[in-house]
Amino acid sequence: MGNEHTSKQFDNELESIRARVLQMGGLVEQQITLAIDALSNGDVDLAEHVNAQDHEVNRLEVTIDEDCTNIIARRQPAAGDLRLIVAVIKTITDLERIGDEAAKVARMAKMVHSSDRLYRPRIVELRHAAQIAIQMLHMSLDAFARLDTGSATQVLKDDRQVDDAFRGILRQLITFMMEDPRTISPSIEILFAAKALERIGDHAKNIAEYVIYFVKGKDVRHIDVAEVERAVME
Amino acid sequence: MGNEHTSKQFDNELESIRARVLQMGGLVEQQITLAIDALSNGDVDLAEHVNAQDHEVNRLEVTIDEDCTNIIARRQPAAGDLRLIVAVIKTITDLERIGDEAAKVARMAKMVHSSDRLYRPRIVELRHAAQIAIQMLHMSLDAFARLDTGSATQVLKDDRQVDDAFRGILRQLITFMMEDPRTISPSIEILFAAKALERIGDHAKNIAEYVIYFVKGKDVRHIDVAEVERAVME
Repeated sequence: MGNEHTSKQFDNELESIRARVLQMGGLVEQQITLAIDALSNGDVDLAEHVNAQDHEVNRLEVTIDEDCTNIIARRQPAAGDLRLIVAVIKTITDLERIGDEAAKVARMAKMVHSSDRLYRPRIVELRHAAQIAIQMLHMSLDAFARLDTGSATQVLKDDRQVDDAFRGILRQLITFMMEDPRTISPSIEILFAAKALERIGDHAKNIAEYVIYFVKGKDVRHIDVAEVERAVME
Repeated sequence: MGNEHTSKQFDNELESIRARVLQMGGLVEQQITLAIDALSNGDVDLAEHVNAQDHEVNRLEVTIDEDCTNIIARRQPAAGDLRLIVAVIKTITDLERIGDEAAKVARMAKMVHSSDRLYRPRIVELRHAAQIAIQMLHMSLDAFARLDTGSATQVLKDDRQVDDAFRGILRQLITFMMEDPRTISPSIEILFAAKALERIGDHAKNIAEYVIYFVKGKDVRHIDVAEVERAVME
């Protein structure tokens, strides 16, 4: 990565930031899993817990952000160190928004199960979409931890899967709604939950792009996956 | 803002970055207006134009981002200068995502009007939501241009309006769908357009928060608007 710093203390500061990004990532990953469980089982307490976790996620975002700005001001990082800081500033924004999406799914769990509904929506397909989204997030965090551009590129490829899963759920919900208009309201809540999962996939993709930027010094946003693969190989 | 730099050249560099952020902001503002026009009038060419603009928005994001990183590496900015750079790095991410949302609305215009539909959705309420979202974005960019924390705080307050407009549209669409199931498919497209406008409001709110951070050095994310008003007064 060239032009590296030599201070041991600076090393520790960067390491601490990376560790906290991974901590924040682990937390939002857990939020998604719990939010989907809450939706499947109608567990309102679990939904409340996901909302409570959101405060911790927000707190981590604010403090990591502050530490990044302080490091820029005090350490004047260059090359790979600077790219790490910039990648972290962007990554935590996406992680925070993943937390928001998980909290939305959790709120839907409360709505879907709180009233005495005639219709209990089917969650199977939603679980499948959630698995893909969680897997994408997990792999992008893993790529961040191990500086692995191969995993990062895989995340970019997997984005299509979560989009396909979303469209499958959409088609199915439209069929349900046409067959029985009483299912319209709950179906729309499920649709928004599916939309939230699709967005989580998008955020995971963003994080994977920042990892490639950090490791390779190449900005691969807005370009084709095949081209990204070539860029990563170089 | 204290600790300011004295280099004239550095001044020009920062000014150029600010000008390009405003240029990018003007472009995405136009994208939203055109996307809504395309949806109202079924103008497929206009919808194509919005999609084409997206490439220019993406290009601006990538080049501004690069310039920011270069300035950090070369100029070692401190205090207000550093806050400006960090605020810009975050602002352009939100602007780019607003562009994406506008492009989504434009794609819906194509879908809604391309097939020979029995049902032409009502766009009046959507126009109202769009007006609020555009107004919020415009005001947040204005706050950025004039370092006006008053306007920025107003944007935070207005976010509730676009959320309310979205919920109004949702209720109305559910009524239509229940009355006539043939309206379900186009209604869901309108619903996603409304959702895109709600998200544009969220992004405008984020930008307003970055303006307050830049001008006041205070991170006002995740706190109550009343508290933000106090923080801005200090």
